[in-house]
Amino acid sequence: MGLFTANNVWMLVSTVLVFIMHLGFSTLEAGFVQKKNVVNILFKNAMIIAIGILTYYIVGFNLMYPGGDPGGFFGFAGFGLDPGPDYVPIEYVDGAYTYWTDFIFQAMFAATAATIVSGAVAERIKLGPFLIFATLLVAVCYPITGMWKWGLGWLDAMGFADFAGSTLVHACGGAAALAMVILLGPRAGKYTDKGIKPIPGHSMPLAAIGVFLLWFGWFGFNGGSVLSGDPEGVSLVFVTTSLAASAGAIGAFFASYFMFKSFDLSMVLNGILGGLVGITAGADVISPAMSIVVGAIAGVIIPFSVVFFDKIKIDDPVGATSVHLVCGIWGTLAVGIFGGANFLTQLIGTLSVIGFTFAFSIAVGYAIKATIGLRVTEEEEMKGLDIEEHDMMAYADAVEGGSYNLAVK
Amino acid sequence: MGLFTANNVWMLVSTVLVFIMHLGFSTLEAGFVQKKNVVNILFKNAMIIAIGILTYYIVGFNLMYPGGDPGGFFGFAGFGLDPGPDYVPIEYVDGAYTYWTDFIFQAMFAATAATIVSGAVAERIKLGPFLIFATLLVAVCYPITGMWKWGLGWLDAMGFADFAGSTLVHACGGAAALAMVILLGPRAGKYTDKGIKPIPGHSMPLAAIGVFLLWFGWFGFNGGSVLSGDPEGVSLVFVTTSLAASAGAIGAFFASYFMFKSFDLSMVLNGILGGLVGITAGADVISPAMSIVVGAIAGVIIPFSVVFFDKIKIDDPVGATSVHLVCGIWGTLAVGIFGGANFLTQLIGTLSVIGFTFAFSIAVGYAIKATIGLRVTEEEEMKGLDIEEHDMMAYADAVEGGSYNLAVK
Amino acid sequence: MGLFTANNVWMLVSTVLVFIMHLGFSTLEAGFVQKKNVVNILFKNAMIIAIGILTYYIVGFNLMYPGGDPGGFFGFAGFGLDPGPDYVPIEYVDGAYTYWTDFIFQAMFAATAATIVSGAVAERIKLGPFLIFATLLVAVCYPITGMWKWGLGWLDAMGFADFAGSTLVHACGGAAALAMVILLGPRAGKYTDKGIKPIPGHSMPLAAIGVFLLWFGWFGFNGGSVLSGDPEGVSLVFVTTSLAASAGAIGAFFASYFMFKSFDLSMVLNGILGGLVGITAGADVISPAMSIVVGAIAGVIIPFSVVFFDKIKIDDPVGATSVHLVCGIWGTLAVGIFGGANFLTQLIGTLSVIGFTFAFSIAVGYAIKATIGLRVTEEEEMKGLDIEEHDMMAYADAVEGGSYNLAVK
Repeated sequence: MGLFTANNVWMLVSTVLVFIMHLGFSTLEAGFVQKKNVVNILFKNAMIIAIGILTYYIVGFNLMYPGGDPGGFFGFAGFGLDPGPDYVPIEYVDGAYTYWTDFIFQAMFAATAATIVSGAVAERIKLGPFLIFATLLVAVCYPITGMWKWGLGWLDAMGFADFAGSTLVHACGGAAALAMVILLGPRAGKYTDKGIKPIPGHSMPLAAIGVFLLWFGWFGFNGGSVLSGDPEGVSLVFVTTSLAASAGAIGAFFASYFMFKSFDLSMVLNGILGGLVGITAGADVISPAMSIVVGAIAGVIIPFSVVFFDKIKIDDPVGATSVHLVCGIWGTLAVGIFGGANFLTQLIGTLSVIGFTFAFSIAVGYAIKATIGLRVTEEEEMKGLDIEEHDMMAYADAVEGGSYNLAVK
Repeated sequence: MGLFTANNVWMLVSTVLVFIMHLGFSTLEAGFVQKKNVVNILFKNAMIIAIGILTYYIVGFNLMYPGGDPGGFFGFAGFGLDPGPDYVPIEYVDGAYTYWTDFIFQAMFAATAATIVSGAVAERIKLGPFLIFATLLVAVCYPITGMWKWGLGWLDAMGFADFAGSTLVHACGGAAALAMVILLGPRAGKYTDKGIKPIPGHSMPLAAIGVFLLWFGWFGFNGGSVLSGDPEGVSLVFVTTSLAASAGAIGAFFASYFMFKSFDLSMVLNGILGGLVGITAGADVISPAMSIVVGAIAGVIIPFSVVFFDKIKIDDPVGATSVHLVCGIWGTLAVGIFGGANFLTQLIGTLSVIGFTFAFSIAVGYAIKATIGLRVTEEEEMKGLDIEEHDMMAYADAVEGGSYNLAVK
Repeated sequence: MGLFTANNVWMLVSTVLVFIMHLGFSTLEAGFVQKKNVVNILFKNAMIIAIGILTYYIVGFNLMYPGGDPGGFFGFAGFGLDPGPDYVPIEYVDGAYTYWTDFIFQAMFAATAATIVSGAVAERIKLGPFLIFATLLVAVCYPITGMWKWGLGWLDAMGFADFAGSTLVHACGGAAALAMVILLGPRAGKYTDKGIKPIPGHSMPLAAIGVFLLWFGWFGFNGGSVLSGDPEGVSLVFVTTSLAASAGAIGAFFASYFMFKSFDLSMVLNGILGGLVGITAGADVISPAMSIVVGAIAGVIIPFSVVFFDKIKIDDPVGATSVHLVCGIWGTLAVGIFGGANFLTQLIGTLSVIGFTFAFSIAVGYAIKATIGLRVTEEEEMKGLDIEEHDMMAYADAVEGGSYNLAVK
């Protein structure tokens, strides 16, 4: 009973930590967009977590963990959840946790994929269409590909290794983001005849708060993926996760300094995230020393990847495709290099999930584009989505010490 | 020993989570006020948590848990705290926790009632009088009504159900807020002959940070109210709490869209809070499916309630009365509908606590108003409380790249 | 196994809490500097945590816990970490935790000393030289003085008491900060013929977020220093820590009101931190009632100390020397007054650590100053470090609803 309780406490603490990653994403994305689109990005993030939890309750969990024969491609255990009267706690490794713990921990992961998309498509997507896309992504696509590994599907049967989701969560979200960015096109004025125009984010403090909160939450994301409070397992994961994040910062620091000859805060922040995404697939099996290598390479990848996507006119205001898609692939392959997994299997696994998610996203996104449309008008984009879609400003700027007459609606 | 330790760890983690709700309230309220009153609201919130913990140590805990015969209306176990040499850990359900754990977990709750008030009376109350009122509310009023249920007083004897405090904490704070708003009157220029003038908050990112942190902390607020780390109990509470919060967002989304024809971020944020307040009384006994209903109704209530209070000229800048008073009542009654409690008992319980708190607040508030005054001068209100009461600005606006000569005091 | 798991879970939760203190320091320092130096301070803080964890892995942990004979002054167990195949969990008091838990918990502490420095030297130090100094401080100096007590060195053998590091962490960081401020000199225009010119911080919300997050993290900093989840021990530490922080706020409130006749938010915020630093050395042995006294005195110290340092032209934009050095000394001595330790031993201990750290910092700082230089040019200081060192602004200020043409690099 003591062990059961201690394990379950750890899983619930992890749940809380993964939850707060949604605040991390919110402030990161809010910081990296322009002042006129801040309410919009906050609105999306508040809705996504709500939609993610509810749809995971209604269909997602039962799509991702359908039970039945292992090795499959698709399964569904029915709508809604009910552990039933004969329910016994889930036994795992050195412990156990309850049915509801299992659900709520996994539910916190589900919304992540859509959140990754929201940053990449920021500043020009219409709210309604985005919410429809996000709902389908978290309710249908993410649980299906997640089942391939975590629901004991065909990738698990092949021996594919993805501890906490470099591929299943991050590359999945990144692939969906890439698909939507392609369908949407870049922000107006970003790529001009004279070259690429930087559109700087409106608040570096918000972005930095976001990255620290994401790292904070990642202790639950990776640490909770041990699925018990096993002391040796969780503490090792803490170490590999922290070393990779740190090495990601250092890697991005040097790489971006050599590329841009300046100390670029957004690169270092994304380097931390790259290191975290990179170690996520192998945090349980890669040694601390090698986790530094994995993280440093992820950090170096970041500025190159950001510049590359800009060159091919993939306009991603927050760098989500570089962080989540590119470093997600790297992290998955790294388990084949440093973590004892089969490299080819890792490659097949990550390409399958990315391919399915990309195709799903293009199909759904195209259907939305063809019917109700995906993109705001040029005028809306100019004026900002906050005024046009929300009738509100992020920062109502009453004159200091002056009248409080300013009314925005 | 393992079980005792695991339970106590959970109670301490919950304590930490409830603590950070005070940062959530701080940023939520700071975001919803004007730029010129931000220092003031932050100052109040920093003081309230300090006052709350100290007075709870000196008198509050012994007023709320006086021991002695159950079923009473008032009791007091004396000033200061000392577990004594013969002290044994508190046994509860499937576990135990220490005397000091008991105290510090409850102490984190105590300041909440006053914090709820601070948002509602923002932008026009004088600092000193507010702090006096807040001290009396948390030191005397909140522990007395809290004792009626949690200290095994007369409401507990009646069978009143209020798991984590929809009534005892939230409606209590909301009733005090309503009393003070009535005594204070609306902000200058809010209700004019031409209609109601919106006074938008100065920072939506701060408001959003607040709501996410409150949800984050609510896992400890509700989860810790299980009073042990009992796996089945705590994990169920996590699920009902999360589903209700999510449903609150969705409910407020649709209701406010139909009312205002725009995607109103502040409504969705308050919808999340409404859902959380709503499930708080019954998070342990309401089923996951029904918790969605409870949360959705709370979310729908929010825009209607906000508009209603504006119509009757109750000027509450952050919507605290709608979130905490109205949804607190709803949540308490909901246990009578979906959670097996007696509806009439629930009604009596919530009305008694609200009535006592309202009367206490009117009496204390009126006494302060009649002696040292409650409200700042019109000129101070125009200029902002930050300059007048604090000789400081929230955002000292040195010209970019220019001189750093700006001195505010 | 249940007890081992529960203890280890608590140590890992504490690790996470200490980690987020680095976000607290980041926002606190960012809030207290001018708008033009915000990217710079965020950049430093992101790098420091990365450098701290990596160097602690490479050399710090093995300098701080060298093993071998107790009572020594210096030891080193070699580069890198490897628990080895015969490793057994570390037994401590009522529990145990793993090797990696031990490392990662201590690693989170290591970067703190450098972070304390970054606030004090803000707005005029060059980035590269600062990072070199910070690396040496956390990799070499902090682990050596830390070993004197926590690595069972000569101060431990003398009976020196410093539970969670009023001296070993805070006064150490404060002494390094003082040394660097002396070498750097004050910000341009701070001390003029006409008197001292206040240079207000650019964002009080960021500063307040920082203080709340630091308090939040302190539950892990002090609570985790019990080195087990021992219910009686950790819960008592929670109570003394919270009471001291609260009393610090109240002490600073009254002291600063009597000194300045205004309600000074930055003093109250620093009062909370002073109370926290003050109780850190004796949180395990000072009674709750006496912890209020310790915290209140720390709070009263704050405004006096801040004014004193300004009078002797020690320009510390965030008050780090007052909070960490002065209250760190106070807290260490307080264990000799209220906690049963020998006062003289406490005095010797704190002076030794401060003396060593100060001398180390002067030596390293001077060597940097004499070679590559410490300080930015006057022009850079005027324009702000963000543009000059980072080619970036913290708040890219596109005109509301207007063009998004503003490019900063």
